[in-house]
Amino acid sequence: MENKIRLAIDMDEVLADTIDKFIEVYRQDHNTEILLEEMNGKEFHELLPGVLNSSWRNYVNQKGFFRDLKVMPGAAEVVKALHEKYDVYIVSAAMEFPNSLVDKYEWLGEHFPYISWKNIIFCGNKIVDVQIMIDDRIRNFVGFKGRPILFSSPHNHFITEYERANTWAEVANKLL
Amino acid sequence: MENKIRLAIDMDEVLADTIDKFIEVYRQDHNTEILLEEMNGKEFHELLPGVLNSSWRNYVNQKGFFRDLKVMPGAAEVVKALHEKYDVYIVSAAMEFPNSLVDKYEWLGEHFPYISWKNIIFCGNKIVDVQIMIDDRIRNFVGFKGRPILFSSPHNHFITEYERANTWAEVANKLL
Repeated sequence: MENKIRLAIDMDEVLADTIDKFIEVYRQDHNTEILLEEMNGKEFHELLPGVLNSSWRNYVNQKGFFRDLKVMPGAAEVVKALHEKYDVYIVSAAMEFPNSLVDKYEWLGEHFPYISWKNIIFCGNKIVDVQIMIDDRIRNFVGFKGRPILFSSPHNHFITEYERANTWAEVANKLL
Repeated sequence: MENKIRLAIDMDEVLADTIDKFIEVYRQDHNTEILLEEMNGKEFHELLPGVLNSSWRNYVNQKGFFRDLKVMPGAAEVVKALHEKYDVYIVSAAMEFPNSLVDKYEWLGEHFPYISWKNIIFCGNKIVDVQIMIDDRIRNFVGFKGRPILFSSPHNHFITEYERANTWAEVANKLL
């Protein structure tokens, strides 16, 4: 355990561009175009035609889905710098989709190899004892006594109650 | 999130009889008998003959090793009752051995099916925000501000600094 301030960072839509992958698979597999500019305030799957509405669950349950996600722009550089200054934990609600566990572990090993296994947490409810939490889901801030930073994602576009970072550059401005 | 008191319960050597499995594999694969009664104050692998000393790491890295562990005596009944009274989280330092992640998830589904995925945490350092923690490793109590309960395992036999439960019946006496 380090004496630095503990900082929890979420994976999907914060470190990893999950929405980009969804857009890609629906384009390829279903010839369906999901438009980012129509997504504000919605989950991406609300934009799917009715017949495909719950098909996204099949994808996230598939082995491999989370293995080749793109790293969010700027995340690689900023997390590296945060890691010098803070005790950085990667905290993902991966437990809902157990086939994602190994994918996510390997993805972190590829893109953030300096994050120790000791600092990776796969969970459901994020009951973590940290001082700062960067997350795109406000449900993870319920009961959290530290400083929550809402990382912008289309679905949280209209939420105004939290300190917000639109990009990793903005995270850097706040925390570095 | 519930309003009950949050209780974190460890897996290996607390819910699951990992040592029993080790004794079994060394007996079968290496014709080597590890004696429980010689284990007090030691890790089981300290009892292995020199040439086998670090071979245990191969086992815990193998898929399947954690899948068929026995449930510790009394754990099934007591955890079920604890689950009624507390907000029970299963917290395992599984991240050191990523091949154990799915095994452990499935093992919990088999033996403790009423524990929601939301209440499972696989991590390294146990920085969880709970009020009570039942664990056999005192390193997991460092920095923990709640009530730690040391669950007896041979390796922690001579530790006297913590409230101790020798069995699941003793846990029941304390918490139910």
